[in-house]
Amino acid sequence: MENIFDFDSVGISEDNSKVIILDQTLLPGKEKFIEINTLPELTEAIVNLRVRGAPAIGVAAALGIAVILKGSKNNNISDLTAELEEISEQLINSRPTAVNLKWAIDKIKAKFFESVRVSDGNITRIIESTIEEARNIKNADIAMSIKIARNGLTLLKPGMSILTHCNAGHLAVSRFGTALAPIYLGNSEGYDFKVFADETRPLLQGARLTAYELHKAGIDVTLICDNMASLVMAQKKIDVIMVGCDRIAANGDVANKIGTSALAVLARHYKIPFYVLGPGSTIDMQTATGDKIIIEERPEYEITDLWYAHKMAPEGVKVYNPAFDITPASLITAIITDKGIFRYPFDFSI
Amino acid sequence: MENIFDFDSVGISEDNSKVIILDQTLLPGKEKFIEINTLPELTEAIVNLRVRGAPAIGVAAALGIAVILKGSKNNNISDLTAELEEISEQLINSRPTAVNLKWAIDKIKAKFFESVRVSDGNITRIIESTIEEARNIKNADIAMSIKIARNGLTLLKPGMSILTHCNAGHLAVSRFGTALAPIYLGNSEGYDFKVFADETRPLLQGARLTAYELHKAGIDVTLICDNMASLVMAQKKIDVIMVGCDRIAANGDVANKIGTSALAVLARHYKIPFYVLGPGSTIDMQTATGDKIIIEERPEYEITDLWYAHKMAPEGVKVYNPAFDITPASLITAIITDKGIFRYPFDFSI
Repeated sequence: MENIFDFDSVGISEDNSKVIILDQTLLPGKEKFIEINTLPELTEAIVNLRVRGAPAIGVAAALGIAVILKGSKNNNISDLTAELEEISEQLINSRPTAVNLKWAIDKIKAKFFESVRVSDGNITRIIESTIEEARNIKNADIAMSIKIARNGLTLLKPGMSILTHCNAGHLAVSRFGTALAPIYLGNSEGYDFKVFADETRPLLQGARLTAYELHKAGIDVTLICDNMASLVMAQKKIDVIMVGCDRIAANGDVANKIGTSALAVLARHYKIPFYVLGPGSTIDMQTATGDKIIIEERPEYEITDLWYAHKMAPEGVKVYNPAFDITPASLITAIITDKGIFRYPFDFSI
Repeated sequence: MENIFDFDSVGISEDNSKVIILDQTLLPGKEKFIEINTLPELTEAIVNLRVRGAPAIGVAAALGIAVILKGSKNNNISDLTAELEEISEQLINSRPTAVNLKWAIDKIKAKFFESVRVSDGNITRIIESTIEEARNIKNADIAMSIKIARNGLTLLKPGMSILTHCNAGHLAVSRFGTALAPIYLGNSEGYDFKVFADETRPLLQGARLTAYELHKAGIDVTLICDNMASLVMAQKKIDVIMVGCDRIAANGDVANKIGTSALAVLARHYKIPFYVLGPGSTIDMQTATGDKIIIEERPEYEITDLWYAHKMAPEGVKVYNPAFDITPASLITAIITDKGIFRYPFDFSI
């Protein structure tokens, strides 16, 4: 695997018999692809973050369901429907807060039931159209990524230095990712960007994934610890900050990986543009403001033990491990989506 | 070792034959004291951060020189003087940027030469007075710590929640430390503080040392990753921020552990007082402003490999590892020293 674009982080075999996933838990040390064609394998991969990034999880679920139905022993519609319901429920329970997961499953189910209605009970036809829908979801993800890349690139100039956080790139989203999309597109057009990647404690997505994929793509990337962002901004090494997003409230408040809000505050202090990039589908008009979003807390061992040779905190000490924080809309220069570029004060209803 | 104050991070045996140091590289997993009575042992302990924290290094060097001279085979003044010069040079070269190290060595040397002049060549008397001077340096460090504690405590109220960064506590300084001094003193007087400790990448002094010593002292401490500071401030969990300092410029700009300036920017944004605590001797009137201080860069492996079971960054990726950053005076609410409390705009000449 020489170039990052030689492979998909989530793909499907040509004969539609298996989903192929690059195991992100083993990066950057080991590049191992796993093949999935059963529900336990698919659930395990999602729960244990072998596949991660909201769009990638959605694509993996869609392709996974299609592959499992194709391999199913059930040869009548009512059994196959029961199996689909069972798969859907288990998958949604594997990561209840993943909005894209539910969205992708609902889309696959809708297509399945539509096919059942129009295909006169032809199971092969039903499964074929389900597979086609799953491939469509993946292709739509690629198209979305390219649109974000094009929109984002209009705000950048050649030679710029960009700070990013966590991983919202090729590994998280089909093709270009979201936050990294304009970087990849610009790079292919000779923009010659420099990137600084926060390592992103505690899961180290920046060190393990972003530094990995940018380095592999031949982009000039420098890894820093999260607490070094202020210094590199003070040293005028950063022209713009670009991050992804988990969820955008109707007022433009953004939920994203823990540490994002610190970067937004620093960006305001150092007068650096702060851009959030994501699919338009991430905008949740049902959530008025960010303070309505409950901060998910993750296990303590991620901070005290994970990745380490030995425990790095005293036994019994209290630990707080919030998964994400809320960046207030007022600190965001622009939100860049496949639907267009929005600027503060945000009005997504247009 | 049940309580943190039952031991000194750097001490001397009753018979003045060895320096006893708690090996900070093994914390928090293992509490191991090492005994030092040779120059190679002392140099190794300083170079490899078995003893760390500017004041603690100074104390270790002073006690170490005294112990080595006491055990010396040299029985005439000219050989002993040559040995002292050799020890001094090697120690200073072990950490050329450590201001306290040079200061302590110079103090010991001055005392030695003064004794040579007044003691009529009595080697036992010369060595005794050198040991006394080393013990004085340690006692002065304790007195300084207690004064910082008293001054700092005047700015705090019972029940307050305090965020700190890196380790400027009992392990770094005799007795109470600097940034943690008012916390220890207040705790002993029933102030019932809550503390949030940044883990402080990449060396993890917050997780390994600050969380360890506060937890051991029975203080309510919660460990967070550096990138979580913004969220806990936004959640109004922090009343005040207290950090130590490596060096204070004449205008009040502060050089301290990487990540300190980010906390100062966040403190200003969230309207939280930001206090810097340190010995008055840290104020360097020869350095006009912080931008005159050259940022030390440390080895890349501290970010990519140190502490980990496996390398956590892609092979060959660029890494930037600055040891400290500069917090501009304008972001500092007050600088708390043993000489008094200074407020912005800072005038240390009084």
